[in-house]
Amino acid sequence: MVDDAARDTRRERRRGRTGEAGSESSRRPDYRALKNPFLPQSVFSDDQVAAIHDTALRVLEELGIKVLLPEARERFARAGALVDEDSQMVRIGRDIVATALATAPKSIRVLAGDRSRDLMLELGSMTFLAGAGAPNVTDLERGRRPGTLAAFEELTKLIQHFDVLHMLCPCIEPQDVDNRFRHYAVNRAQLTLSNKVPFIFARGTPQIEDGFEMIRLARGLSEDAFLADAHCYTVINTNSPRQLDIPMAQGIIDFARAGQISIITPFCLAGAMAPITVAGALTLQHAEALAGLTLAQIVRPGAPVVYGSFSSNVDMKSGAPAFGTPEHVKATLGAGQLARFTGLPWRSGGGSAANISDAQAAHETQFALWGSVLAGATVCIHAAGWLEGGLSVSFEKLITDIEALQTVAELCASTPGDEDAIGFEAITEVQPGGHFFAAGHTMVRYRTAFYEPLVADWSNFGNWTQAGSKSATERATGIWKRLVADFQPPTSAAATSGILDEFIARRTEEGGAAPVS
Amino acid sequence: MVDDAARDTRRERRRGRTGEAGSESSRRPDYRALKNPFLPQSVFSDDQVAAIHDTALRVLEELGIKVLLPEARERFARAGALVDEDSQMVRIGRDIVATALATAPKSIRVLAGDRSRDLMLELGSMTFLAGAGAPNVTDLERGRRPGTLAAFEELTKLIQHFDVLHMLCPCIEPQDVDNRFRHYAVNRAQLTLSNKVPFIFARGTPQIEDGFEMIRLARGLSEDAFLADAHCYTVINTNSPRQLDIPMAQGIIDFARAGQISIITPFCLAGAMAPITVAGALTLQHAEALAGLTLAQIVRPGAPVVYGSFSSNVDMKSGAPAFGTPEHVKATLGAGQLARFTGLPWRSGGGSAANISDAQAAHETQFALWGSVLAGATVCIHAAGWLEGGLSVSFEKLITDIEALQTVAELCASTPGDEDAIGFEAITEVQPGGHFFAAGHTMVRYRTAFYEPLVADWSNFGNWTQAGSKSATERATGIWKRLVADFQPPTSAAATSGILDEFIARRTEEGGAAPVS
Repeated sequence: MVDDAARDTRRERRRGRTGEAGSESSRRPDYRALKNPFLPQSVFSDDQVAAIHDTALRVLEELGIKVLLPEARERFARAGALVDEDSQMVRIGRDIVATALATAPKSIRVLAGDRSRDLMLELGSMTFLAGAGAPNVTDLERGRRPGTLAAFEELTKLIQHFDVLHMLCPCIEPQDVDNRFRHYAVNRAQLTLSNKVPFIFARGTPQIEDGFEMIRLARGLSEDAFLADAHCYTVINTNSPRQLDIPMAQGIIDFARAGQISIITPFCLAGAMAPITVAGALTLQHAEALAGLTLAQIVRPGAPVVYGSFSSNVDMKSGAPAFGTPEHVKATLGAGQLARFTGLPWRSGGGSAANISDAQAAHETQFALWGSVLAGATVCIHAAGWLEGGLSVSFEKLITDIEALQTVAELCASTPGDEDAIGFEAITEVQPGGHFFAAGHTMVRYRTAFYEPLVADWSNFGNWTQAGSKSATERATGIWKRLVADFQPPTSAAATSGILDEFIARRTEEGGAAPVS
Repeated sequence: MVDDAARDTRRERRRGRTGEAGSESSRRPDYRALKNPFLPQSVFSDDQVAAIHDTALRVLEELGIKVLLPEARERFARAGALVDEDSQMVRIGRDIVATALATAPKSIRVLAGDRSRDLMLELGSMTFLAGAGAPNVTDLERGRRPGTLAAFEELTKLIQHFDVLHMLCPCIEPQDVDNRFRHYAVNRAQLTLSNKVPFIFARGTPQIEDGFEMIRLARGLSEDAFLADAHCYTVINTNSPRQLDIPMAQGIIDFARAGQISIITPFCLAGAMAPITVAGALTLQHAEALAGLTLAQIVRPGAPVVYGSFSSNVDMKSGAPAFGTPEHVKATLGAGQLARFTGLPWRSGGGSAANISDAQAAHETQFALWGSVLAGATVCIHAAGWLEGGLSVSFEKLITDIEALQTVAELCASTPGDEDAIGFEAITEVQPGGHFFAAGHTMVRYRTAFYEPLVADWSNFGNWTQAGSKSATERATGIWKRLVADFQPPTSAAATSGILDEFIARRTEEGGAAPVS
């Protein structure tokens, strides 16, 4: 027989049991400060990692990187890099990179709106972020549509609700707000609806300065107090291969100068913007990430930077990007080796290329997630809700992916293996063929023993059919709607709306700040 | 920005590229002999593992296990165990278990119908099996229904087709065949449609002997040749807690005597048939698995046995079993530690409690899968297609799960990290902001560089919508239908139908063989 007799027996027993042990749970898991419980896994030998690092240094030294922002080229030049103003190419010697790696902090404390939401970003810690940067938003009730501010606010409420999402993120682009004022609306939503660490776009100095000022106002910080700690982060994407554009270079400079966090992420799709091999894509990624973090350290030694990896592959038949593929997982594992080589906290990227929240989407997202977990990523971005390779964020997928993140978070908790957990007495207590439902060992533990699912439905087929035969994605609709409807922002966050609105009104009158490109 | 500028750039480039590099693939991945590439992960300290082992020995020695089959009690008694015939309790001394662990083989070679399908079961090797033992079958065209022989045959064709499913399994119960003759139909389908290692039910000696004889006939083996190697396997489920029923005990004896493989699997749902703690459930599992494998070794020292683990948890509110939970993953990781403590090849269990092939089903199945992979399981049963905690097997989920298994199989292949893979020359070749589609480094590799998906659709939202807005599960319908329609059995397998049909006709005339319970 294949595991069926035991199941039949168990089902019979269950019938006699309903209600026996009560149903309240007193489980209050802590998902706020996760330590990765897994040994980091490797795809390359130590020699190969050293060779990739060395080749990346050769790329920077011999080939260089094109830097479009004059101020950035000037700063590189002053640090000793060889700059060709005609071609805008900057060749960075390995000594300059080595100095930068020596000053980049290995641990970054990030202050949130509440001390209980503060984070420590370092190797070994593990944080998850929702899908970010999508132009579109989708849910089963309202369909797929361009991102709106209302949807951004709803998603921010959901992100605030779940402890397993550790920082805020620009999940979708509110396209209904003029881009001179959009950052005010996005920052206001983050600061008034949540006490988690906010994201600030690097779309030119005026927008960045607006963002920093809004944080100071919301948090009640002086300029000096703001500079003394990290309070927010941005994501810097290089334009692979080997190019750093104006807003991104400016972002690195402005964030470094203010002591705020740059997550420097080349987006290296193997076969497209990067060599087709995993090792090659990572070599390019490593070179570009080192260039970016070197610029930050030139601006301010000790500036908080997160080494960024988001290397996956494309479909070589169509050029379509793919996520959660074997190559994506391998690239993430290799990136972890490179990050550990540098000792820096680092980010990975999750996600899926599926068009809806289906089995493909779940499988791809979870493969990318396991890549991140087994690679020891400090920050895993796009870990929930990301569809279409980032062209949309799904409300329902956010919920079903959060279940996966909570499952990983549960794995971070230690598994009791002491004498009492081993439970010889419990086994003594129950006769052969009996059951443990009413055993003393069970009774003292049943309220807190197991993870309780968010969206998974474990009822049998009959009950599930009677309840409407809903898929997990369909059930997720009810969950996000209820959470959005019931949402109460943290009092301290909500209280900042007055001062932020004053600032926004003034800046709006002044014309706002257009994004720099 | 959050990874979007890079993406926009990439999408623009893609438009200009269609067809540039052709579309044929010459990729022929080998998924037949997988070596697990990951370091096994632990949830217990070595001391705790030793304590669990020791406590399991105490359970067997002091409490004992109820053995319903007189012949089994007699064999245990002759080996020195203390047997109480009134209570049917057998207390097994640790010396007897130690002797059994010393004779149980650490590596098991299993001969299939074709040498290319032979397997080596040992720590470090990794095999996947489809969902097994389900009374029901489901697909999107025909709905959920009791298992039929026709569906069993179709599923066997699909299992034969995919190399990443390494052995056959009794995926569903063909309830339209009388249970005196059902095993003939099941064995015939396995032996005529496939050259992979078959499963034989342990439902009493007559059915087992029929199964062995059919294998001898199909493979052209003498009795001696059959006995000399393992050619098939069965799954033995103990009736947890601490009970071994008649057909299961008989199965262990008959398979051991014939040198065929017993996978001895307690089905320990924490909180129900086992202690509520992971450590406690594993202690009970370990005791029962040791009892079963000890019986096998008493019967025939060196008999091939696979240490079995299938410990998960129930929902303490309803008693419903759950799979792919944090507790399931932790139990699997702990089971791997216990299996390595014994040195034996071992099995784990995948699966999902979802009612349909949705995001929940995919997430749960993949969590269970990663539990198995990171625990170093030799055989992962129920790795594809299993729904409702084993009450149905889904054709569509079989396909979407196989994609996940193929992804894991790809991760077993080494990742080139030599100078050529690192590709400094390739990076030199492409200018800043350019692309690698036409680089020489790409051109020599693009046909084989990346995994090609089975069911994943990476096309953009517009193309996906035009193609009918199908979910992965809906696309899977077309895939299994095509594969079933196009299926050609291996010639050598198909050629056995004559001799098997003769045997079946004779045995049918004799009245078949009713299952023993």
